[in-house]
Amino acid sequence: MGSEDVKLISFWVSPFAKRVEWALKLKGVEYEYIEEDIFNKSSLLLELNPVHKKVPVLVHGHKPIAESFIILEYIDETWNQYPLLPHHPYQRAHARFWAATAEEMLMEAAWIGMCTSGDDQENAVKAAREAMEKIEEEIKGKKFFGGENIGYLDIALGWIPYWTPVWEEVGSMQIIEPLRFPGITAWMTNFLNHPVIKDSLPPREDMLVYFHSRRKALSSSFQGRFKF
Amino acid sequence: MGSEDVKLISFWVSPFAKRVEWALKLKGVEYEYIEEDIFNKSSLLLELNPVHKKVPVLVHGHKPIAESFIILEYIDETWNQYPLLPHHPYQRAHARFWAATAEEMLMEAAWIGMCTSGDDQENAVKAAREAMEKIEEEIKGKKFFGGENIGYLDIALGWIPYWTPVWEEVGSMQIIEPLRFPGITAWMTNFLNHPVIKDSLPPREDMLVYFHSRRKALSSSFQGRFKF
Repeated sequence: MGSEDVKLISFWVSPFAKRVEWALKLKGVEYEYIEEDIFNKSSLLLELNPVHKKVPVLVHGHKPIAESFIILEYIDETWNQYPLLPHHPYQRAHARFWAATAEEMLMEAAWIGMCTSGDDQENAVKAAREAMEKIEEEIKGKKFFGGENIGYLDIALGWIPYWTPVWEEVGSMQIIEPLRFPGITAWMTNFLNHPVIKDSLPPREDMLVYFHSRRKALSSSFQGRFKF
Repeated sequence: MGSEDVKLISFWVSPFAKRVEWALKLKGVEYEYIEEDIFNKSSLLLELNPVHKKVPVLVHGHKPIAESFIILEYIDETWNQYPLLPHHPYQRAHARFWAATAEEMLMEAAWIGMCTSGDDQENAVKAAREAMEKIEEEIKGKKFFGGENIGYLDIALGWIPYWTPVWEEVGSMQIIEPLRFPGITAWMTNFLNHPVIKDSLPPREDMLVYFHSRRKALSSSFQGRFKF
């Protein structure tokens, strides 16, 4: 499959786009990377994803596919090497469930925690830790969520090991307490040391600058709006 | 597959649970229906879906699966007869995209429209119609989203033809304008006349009573909280 066939419209610090990048790399699919300016959206992005106008968009043979979880399913169905989802329907459902649940419960809480302070932040951190507790049960005693190898759920939750610590630093908060979450803490190290992951992470210093500016821009809009 | 193997924890008026029921019926899978009291949740529900505590839950061979879209995938992967998702990965991605997008953009707006009035309702109805416009483009000229037969996307959007008109009546609003959405209007008739669908709809009068009471209970909590 030549690189002319596959394009990824991405944004360097998007955890959603990064999932797609990891999936393509794990499968050894060559692709052309196209950096999008999400603050001044290109006509290409608006044409490829007119409904949500968001990255990532995967373009394969001129056909665009949007929404990172849907793209992961597409990639797994299109390129059979290195299967991402488990084989058995029940385990597949289980992986999809935790991917969606972490997105809904943990990512939103962690993000709001970063953007707020005071009671709002305290509530967000509490909600994030409660979600983390459930994920801890899932990873306890395993190297990866996928077992011995990185799989769909590892990729789906792959923002936790690298994005969360940056958000914690920017928001002056702590969500991942190593003593409370030993399974997640061990998995974070395993995940970040995987050769495909290690070589495709954005520079931490740039992330700090970027998320400090996001916190500043967004902090007022969250005040009192989100209840956990 | 005997009925002792498959159980569906449901609630009579849940559009999410109804999807699962339709999928099982279309595939001819026998199942035991268990009605849940969602206002006084059973220990069975809390045990089977401890994370979200919501219906539907499908139990197959003592294993619980939650979240309606994830259950639909599980059903399609487990029972091969009458495939719900299309065969080709791109068409599968397309169906998943519109199922998720309608849930996010249209269902939320229609629900908030039912529960509010004044400016909040006006904004919600406007957002719902904009989402409806995009769906109109998808169905134009087709009998079903799945082509000649009901498929995954028809089931996923199956709440539109029967729940929306009830919500419109309860909220004294109009979202589905037949002249503006002729494709959706024709599909609604096709869908509601399908023998599997026709025979499994809750009584409209009971729905009106139920949603009037939901509107009454929820109206205060939506005031000014949702921006479109």
